[in-house]
Amino acid sequence: MTQQLDPSRRTRMAVVGLGYWGPNLVRNVNELANAELAMVCDSRRPSLEKIARRYPGVATTDDFHDVIADPTIDAILLATPVSTHHTLAQRALRAGKHVFVEKPLAGSAEEAATLLRLAEENSCVLMVGHTFLYSPAVNAVRDLIQEGAVGDIYFISMSRVNLGIHQTDVSVVWDLGPHDFSILRYWLDENPIAVSAASRGCVIPGKPDVAFINLEFPSGVIAHVELSWLAPSKLRRTTIVGSSQMIVYDDTSSEPVRVFDSGVVFPEPGSFGEYQLSYRTGSIVSPRIDASEPLFLEMQDFCTAIQTGRSPRSSGQIGFDVVRVIEAVHASLDAGGGRIAVAADGALSVA
Amino acid sequence: MTQQLDPSRRTRMAVVGLGYWGPNLVRNVNELANAELAMVCDSRRPSLEKIARRYPGVATTDDFHDVIADPTIDAILLATPVSTHHTLAQRALRAGKHVFVEKPLAGSAEEAATLLRLAEENSCVLMVGHTFLYSPAVNAVRDLIQEGAVGDIYFISMSRVNLGIHQTDVSVVWDLGPHDFSILRYWLDENPIAVSAASRGCVIPGKPDVAFINLEFPSGVIAHVELSWLAPSKLRRTTIVGSSQMIVYDDTSSEPVRVFDSGVVFPEPGSFGEYQLSYRTGSIVSPRIDASEPLFLEMQDFCTAIQTGRSPRSSGQIGFDVVRVIEAVHASLDAGGGRIAVAADGALSVA
Amino acid sequence: MTQQLDPSRRTRMAVVGLGYWGPNLVRNVNELANAELAMVCDSRRPSLEKIARRYPGVATTDDFHDVIADPTIDAILLATPVSTHHTLAQRALRAGKHVFVEKPLAGSAEEAATLLRLAEENSCVLMVGHTFLYSPAVNAVRDLIQEGAVGDIYFISMSRVNLGIHQTDVSVVWDLGPHDFSILRYWLDENPIAVSAASRGCVIPGKPDVAFINLEFPSGVIAHVELSWLAPSKLRRTTIVGSSQMIVYDDTSSEPVRVFDSGVVFPEPGSFGEYQLSYRTGSIVSPRIDASEPLFLEMQDFCTAIQTGRSPRSSGQIGFDVVRVIEAVHASLDAGGGRIAVAADGALSVA
Amino acid sequence: MTQQLDPSRRTRMAVVGLGYWGPNLVRNVNELANAELAMVCDSRRPSLEKIARRYPGVATTDDFHDVIADPTIDAILLATPVSTHHTLAQRALRAGKHVFVEKPLAGSAEEAATLLRLAEENSCVLMVGHTFLYSPAVNAVRDLIQEGAVGDIYFISMSRVNLGIHQTDVSVVWDLGPHDFSILRYWLDENPIAVSAASRGCVIPGKPDVAFINLEFPSGVIAHVELSWLAPSKLRRTTIVGSSQMIVYDDTSSEPVRVFDSGVVFPEPGSFGEYQLSYRTGSIVSPRIDASEPLFLEMQDFCTAIQTGRSPRSSGQIGFDVVRVIEAVHASLDAGGGRIAVAADGALSVA
Repeated sequence: MTQQLDPSRRTRMAVVGLGYWGPNLVRNVNELANAELAMVCDSRRPSLEKIARRYPGVATTDDFHDVIADPTIDAILLATPVSTHHTLAQRALRAGKHVFVEKPLAGSAEEAATLLRLAEENSCVLMVGHTFLYSPAVNAVRDLIQEGAVGDIYFISMSRVNLGIHQTDVSVVWDLGPHDFSILRYWLDENPIAVSAASRGCVIPGKPDVAFINLEFPSGVIAHVELSWLAPSKLRRTTIVGSSQMIVYDDTSSEPVRVFDSGVVFPEPGSFGEYQLSYRTGSIVSPRIDASEPLFLEMQDFCTAIQTGRSPRSSGQIGFDVVRVIEAVHASLDAGGGRIAVAADGALSVA
Repeated sequence: MTQQLDPSRRTRMAVVGLGYWGPNLVRNVNELANAELAMVCDSRRPSLEKIARRYPGVATTDDFHDVIADPTIDAILLATPVSTHHTLAQRALRAGKHVFVEKPLAGSAEEAATLLRLAEENSCVLMVGHTFLYSPAVNAVRDLIQEGAVGDIYFISMSRVNLGIHQTDVSVVWDLGPHDFSILRYWLDENPIAVSAASRGCVIPGKPDVAFINLEFPSGVIAHVELSWLAPSKLRRTTIVGSSQMIVYDDTSSEPVRVFDSGVVFPEPGSFGEYQLSYRTGSIVSPRIDASEPLFLEMQDFCTAIQTGRSPRSSGQIGFDVVRVIEAVHASLDAGGGRIAVAADGALSVA
Repeated sequence: MTQQLDPSRRTRMAVVGLGYWGPNLVRNVNELANAELAMVCDSRRPSLEKIARRYPGVATTDDFHDVIADPTIDAILLATPVSTHHTLAQRALRAGKHVFVEKPLAGSAEEAATLLRLAEENSCVLMVGHTFLYSPAVNAVRDLIQEGAVGDIYFISMSRVNLGIHQTDVSVVWDLGPHDFSILRYWLDENPIAVSAASRGCVIPGKPDVAFINLEFPSGVIAHVELSWLAPSKLRRTTIVGSSQMIVYDDTSSEPVRVFDSGVVFPEPGSFGEYQLSYRTGSIVSPRIDASEPLFLEMQDFCTAIQTGRSPRSSGQIGFDVVRVIEAVHASLDAGGGRIAVAADGALSVA
Repeated sequence: MTQQLDPSRRTRMAVVGLGYWGPNLVRNVNELANAELAMVCDSRRPSLEKIARRYPGVATTDDFHDVIADPTIDAILLATPVSTHHTLAQRALRAGKHVFVEKPLAGSAEEAATLLRLAEENSCVLMVGHTFLYSPAVNAVRDLIQEGAVGDIYFISMSRVNLGIHQTDVSVVWDLGPHDFSILRYWLDENPIAVSAASRGCVIPGKPDVAFINLEFPSGVIAHVELSWLAPSKLRRTTIVGSSQMIVYDDTSSEPVRVFDSGVVFPEPGSFGEYQLSYRTGSIVSPRIDASEPLFLEMQDFCTAIQTGRSPRSSGQIGFDVVRVIEAVHASLDAGGGRIAVAADGALSVA
């Protein structure tokens, strides 16, 4: 069980890593009602100074040890390179700090499992930055699925492509995959049982910058995810096809969720052979989607998890599940594109 | 070698099968300068009568034997169900008729191979109705590829989805796949060496109505093809990503070909590790695309092939290659999504 | 009162004018259950022969006199140039025939008035080919207006532009204006009280090929209509802004009607000066629009009007009102763009 | 002549008015290489404090007198309500300060003329914040026009509509009109000779929130401008139709400039009556548009104008011309929509 703090006391947070994403965490933590931006940590002095100017009163350090050694710090947010997640999160959890880690949780499922266990042992919150789980559009789709509006989900097809930015340390699967894999996990409430993938390192041989990924789920749902750093234009298009309705989700559109009341009209049972299917094309609705900033909702959830002991939506478990999918995808790529079965205990095998 | 006719004499053609597609063949054959619509054949009397009213002078029959027995008929066009292609085409070729078969050429690669051999032996033209090979937009893309404007092709991603029409006799791969597989064959001038696929029979269990297909080519190009009879809206979108330019081809758009002068700017060779890549985003051009009807150009090509002895663009060989890809895709589906290697002689094996 | 025919007897119709549009009338008349395509008339022999081949049994003539002299002909449909409408319709009505005239009804309001009076005197139906009044999308919008879903209409902005086709005999106002003017008349159930317009003869000096037209209605609604034969791409976009909802109608879109539940949130009455307005942005709905062919519905309405004595939707009166608006627009153009008041009796005056 | 400063000395600037727009000026002035953000002025203390925290070292005052009394201040930027422009700019110019005024320059042409004269007399730069004149897309269009690529401009149609924000002090013409009127002035290098307009105060009676405006230029070009605070969705679409090419400019699009190589093909001169026109539809090009921030370029131009004595692009003269057009539009609205002629000396008369 997670330790509970006095809700009247504001949670003191430290942000570690002030590169591209860290300053966004800083800005949102600073706006939380029940938390306090207590410290920032980065090895680069100019980054620290810039933050200090904008947020007078925040402590700064270039030594991670100062962060975990400060007993007044309740929680640590890591926005550092993936390769450091395991080590830093481990030290933070051992010091009894609640930890928020930017996605992906760790560089391997094994490392992720270690962190989950440590959080459990130290009664600390372990949360992962799967920000899309706080996107109002993603949640609107989830509500439609859970209310049964979609019916049985047949399949989901996702494209997340744009020109750049090639990462030097990880593949496009590690970079962009966590977004779609965490959304699928959140919508379907299940983990894939098999995965297959094709990819190519177009620009840097051996470093996949385009990938086509198939996922099979226990419920029968199949999902396809197209990821690429090479594309003529930005495309974020997810299609959910269900037995009752179909949904197009596109977070770059002014209408991010469109619900199509279309589908197949089934003839009498048992008559497939004789009668042709017919099709229903009904109205299309773009529901109003709230404009809240997902990152702020995510920070609030971290704060609430710490103060109430409730598990955050983007839990360590989901972070672990996502890493497991990434590993399965890479196992398929290593096997030349073969189908990889994922056992309930996470063991991978060529199917 | 194909037998040559006197070019001054008009080729007498018979259209067999007056269902959905046959009347389109009839209409276009009728407009050919060097050919003559001599006969139509269908088992349904009303279909024959309708054609006879519109094209006075055409002979009608409900017996295929009448078609092949008529020595004045030079060429036969088959728009009958796939399952009949092999038998009917075989009889026609044995009777020394030139044969045009609607896509796909046959229900198996073995059957297709038989037809190829028979055409060779009887010096007859064997052509397949891969109409997209005559689409001005498809040819504009091919020209851009061949001129080198695209550079090295990295990958091609294709989506061909809409709501309906579920076929009762074949999967979505047999129904829609020939379009994309023939286009890939035409653009790349090579056959895939490996294939993997995922699919689901959403509406009729066991009959795939959605499929996600990966293809690997000898040149290193990878292609992804998404096919579905279940979709919120019609989508025909093909993206070609090359080292120099990128192209979006969409035959439902008023701008079917869009050329993006965008790509990666490479740092000095050997410096990948140290320098970050940068990106170039240039102008976008939608070239003017000719509005000719592909089916008419296709009929013209058939006529020219007969009269000159030149192989038609949509040759029996291409038809055979396409059927081979379909078989490989189904072999992958039968193997639960595994990767299927395609040998040079067409032999399939689980990779 | 209009004379009533025996409904069991099929109305015998004659189509006059087989240019661009006439054959469409022929095709739809031919499909009517309660009517019979009895005769076609055109001065060009080849046009007559083409129709005769496709519709065996129809009588043909190149002399309009034959049409009105045939006592078995009940109704005449005119698809001839505007300049002939008055003369031909007059002769037909005097011969006691029901008359359908392609839009616009006549070349002047005075001519149109004569035809209205003649139809009344001879108890004949006089109908005008304002086909958009039978468009399912236009009617869906009308229903939304009449149900009060839109609230009070504030204004309507319409664009109808594309490249070509310059008419040699009339301005773009006479050519394209009837569409929008008839739609406005149908939606609003009122005639404008003032009109102003700007135009230019870009390609042929003195022959307006672009026009920007403002209309004021008794209810306070204002409408703007942009018409042009010169445009980079086809645009058919009509926006209706009401106090409760807003609608975009675009008959070239796969979603021809889109209903925006957006608007202004009013503060307490009388507090305008002190409080700022706020805005409501709700869901967007594209209702399913029936795919019926407007022209067929129009022909059915003509037939029903003849057989029941009920006035057709696209009545002579609406045709007259539309011509009056066109005249007012040209009066404004002649006055250099000044505002033209339209009196209740149709008299125009520079305002 | 404008006084010239030592280019080695940085121009000291003061920003007056820290409402919605002022902070943007502050941010951009702060980034100028040759200028210094010396002072900010606003009657609201919290606004001043917020700026002081972010830009340590800037002087603050709530008294405009402090700004003009400080001899070290070279230039003053006014982002205050329109009604204050005349008084504040006058005082600043009389104090020998260079002045930048947010658009529109003043509340009347008479006031604007006073400011022009004062700037001249005091050898000060007077510049207006017509930011679109610094938009790379607007300049790309201007280049195409000036190079002759468009040919003779036939007409320009502009729409600038969205939901909100109703201004309490001015009409939509005063609020949104300056954008389009300044762009037209910049592209065409001429002022309109006549104007007519229709409008309605839909939400607040008497306060126009939608307007349809026609402008006639000496060259024969006609322009139409649609402005509205009431619209289902944001629309920024400008179409330029020329004798050689057509352009669509839309600053909300990822392709803000699209060049259509389309137009009319003219038959031999003098043969209009006999031959039909034909149409040419060529390629469509979206040139790469630079992503520079227009406001920064505008601030740079102000700085350069001060330091070099060159007139800024968005000069006081253009600001005056724009106000004159607004006045003419309101004169037309006051005259019930009649056509208003604009004399060379700016005198308005009902045409």
